[in-house]
Amino acid sequence: MKDMKCEIIGRQTLHFLNQPEIVSCASVVGPKEGRGPLSSGFDFIMEDALNNQSSYEASEQTMMEQACHRAMKKAEMQPDDISVMLGGDLLNQIITTSLTARSLSIPFLGLYGACSTMAESLLLGSCLVNCDAAKFALCTAASHYCTAERQFRYPLEYGNQRTPAAQWTVTGCGACILGKSSNSWAKVTYGTIGKVVDYQVTDVNNMGAAMAPAAADTLFQHFKDTGRTPKDYDMIFSGDLGMIGSQLLMALMQEKGMTLEKDKYQDCGLLIFNKADDVHAGASGCGCSASVLSAYILPKIRTGTWKRVLFMATGALMSTTSSQQGESIPGIAHAVSLEHIE
Amino acid sequence: MKDMKCEIIGRQTLHFLNQPEIVSCASVVGPKEGRGPLSSGFDFIMEDALNNQSSYEASEQTMMEQACHRAMKKAEMQPDDISVMLGGDLLNQIITTSLTARSLSIPFLGLYGACSTMAESLLLGSCLVNCDAAKFALCTAASHYCTAERQFRYPLEYGNQRTPAAQWTVTGCGACILGKSSNSWAKVTYGTIGKVVDYQVTDVNNMGAAMAPAAADTLFQHFKDTGRTPKDYDMIFSGDLGMIGSQLLMALMQEKGMTLEKDKYQDCGLLIFNKADDVHAGASGCGCSASVLSAYILPKIRTGTWKRVLFMATGALMSTTSSQQGESIPGIAHAVSLEHIE
Repeated sequence: MKDMKCEIIGRQTLHFLNQPEIVSCASVVGPKEGRGPLSSGFDFIMEDALNNQSSYEASEQTMMEQACHRAMKKAEMQPDDISVMLGGDLLNQIITTSLTARSLSIPFLGLYGACSTMAESLLLGSCLVNCDAAKFALCTAASHYCTAERQFRYPLEYGNQRTPAAQWTVTGCGACILGKSSNSWAKVTYGTIGKVVDYQVTDVNNMGAAMAPAAADTLFQHFKDTGRTPKDYDMIFSGDLGMIGSQLLMALMQEKGMTLEKDKYQDCGLLIFNKADDVHAGASGCGCSASVLSAYILPKIRTGTWKRVLFMATGALMSTTSSQQGESIPGIAHAVSLEHIE
Repeated sequence: MKDMKCEIIGRQTLHFLNQPEIVSCASVVGPKEGRGPLSSGFDFIMEDALNNQSSYEASEQTMMEQACHRAMKKAEMQPDDISVMLGGDLLNQIITTSLTARSLSIPFLGLYGACSTMAESLLLGSCLVNCDAAKFALCTAASHYCTAERQFRYPLEYGNQRTPAAQWTVTGCGACILGKSSNSWAKVTYGTIGKVVDYQVTDVNNMGAAMAPAAADTLFQHFKDTGRTPKDYDMIFSGDLGMIGSQLLMALMQEKGMTLEKDKYQDCGLLIFNKADDVHAGASGCGCSASVLSAYILPKIRTGTWKRVLFMATGALMSTTSSQQGESIPGIAHAVSLEHIE
């Protein structure tokens, strides 16, 4: 046991004894996100949804490239300094991330966890850095409103009506570099790998309800595995449960006897847009938690406002085919514990 | 350095000093694959493409469930004994694997590497087991001819003509459990993480040509990083380059001064179907290398026929949208070194 660097705690949690650090982070978002309450935290706000490209898909890819380059620039690194890139997006065959990995030319492991991808990426990246399998790992996730709408729902030109439970896919990307550095201000201490949980929700316009049970499952398991309680965290963030999903999560946690205090729990999907923008039940997309992490959560850990934060991104595991075939929408959630370094 | 278990060698290779072992493996394939030369190696051959389900998508999912259950049964394990499941497939949002993870209820990390997924899964699984982040890891990848055709090309009912360069997607799934066991017969010693390489191939009916440059890149890098040469391996396997891609790989390696001997290099895509089945340039799909690994490669390592094998699965990173938008098709290849345990 003496040479153990990673320890499995309970059923689903990893304890990173070597404490991988956040070396840098960056975010790039669309104009609507850029007008929102987190405006000052984003590194770059695109002028429009096309980001000087000829298609929304190309726009999404350049957005991810820009976020990755900015994260590297802040860390004074070149692509050759990064051991591995771990990331994903919502588009079929994670094409955004694959094409970004092509232009960065960094050894690449593609991930898909729907909107849980940023946490999956941080969890695996931490694991690799913790165990000397990567010196520096670039972790990233992105989504784009216009590409997601036309792939999962309707082309924007339809002007389709949205239901009250619908969430608005964030146009945004977050990128973090994990590793070791003399001036780091945050470290990753635990990671809890989620199980796929299904409460038989079939409404593709109510992703919050589909994901909340998985969020409750991972959160409860994290506390069970680590022996921690909600009180041990200054803040707990879910990814993009939105208004309905986050209320369901609070109710489910109360049932399990692990009450989340209202002032110590927030959902990234309720932070990024202005109320006046009327996005119905909130924001979604894997770029939501990824960009909020970089623009809002990590800066507050950096300043020490929060000493210990649980970041739990949630994903709805569906495809248009599975929904058209009548499948229910299971969810998954992965969590990482982020702690301030004095 | 004393407590180091994983070592980064050169730019892209990991040396697993703790030597994760293959505890068990299993494969399930469709009837066409079951009639082929590897027939006796498969654990279960489906009676027809539907596998007693009402859709091809449900068939693919049950195929993966069956392969995972068989791998667990051989290892005398239950889902609760497995720390983590790592896998993926070709369908949008890797829905096959996500729904399989739902029914197995094992902590799940979704991957997407197109047809390189089995090697990506083994590489990450080995890393986790090597570093005590997983006691046992279930690594899997699947594809299904009927679901892939209708998603990437045309519904089967069209009876569409195939070009000579086209490859036939394997209906098959392979599953491996990695860990430590007193009676293991194979171990994973090195893993080389691929970069995304693009030679500007745009023909979606010639995946072999699109993937060969990435295969050559990873293979050359593996030799450079480890100091090994092709002569150090009893056999080198590429995933599904097919007839055109494997000839291109041999030509590219010759150019790089690392000649692959014809009797020591094989492509999984040229092994699984009978010649009489006329699959044109060979087999493809991430189920191809995954099922050939389990049914043909690992059994020969088990008996000691081959002491050291390099397993390199290759993926073409495209989506129907990217191709329709005129994007070229970049490739990726990951490699793991598998060695016989006396």
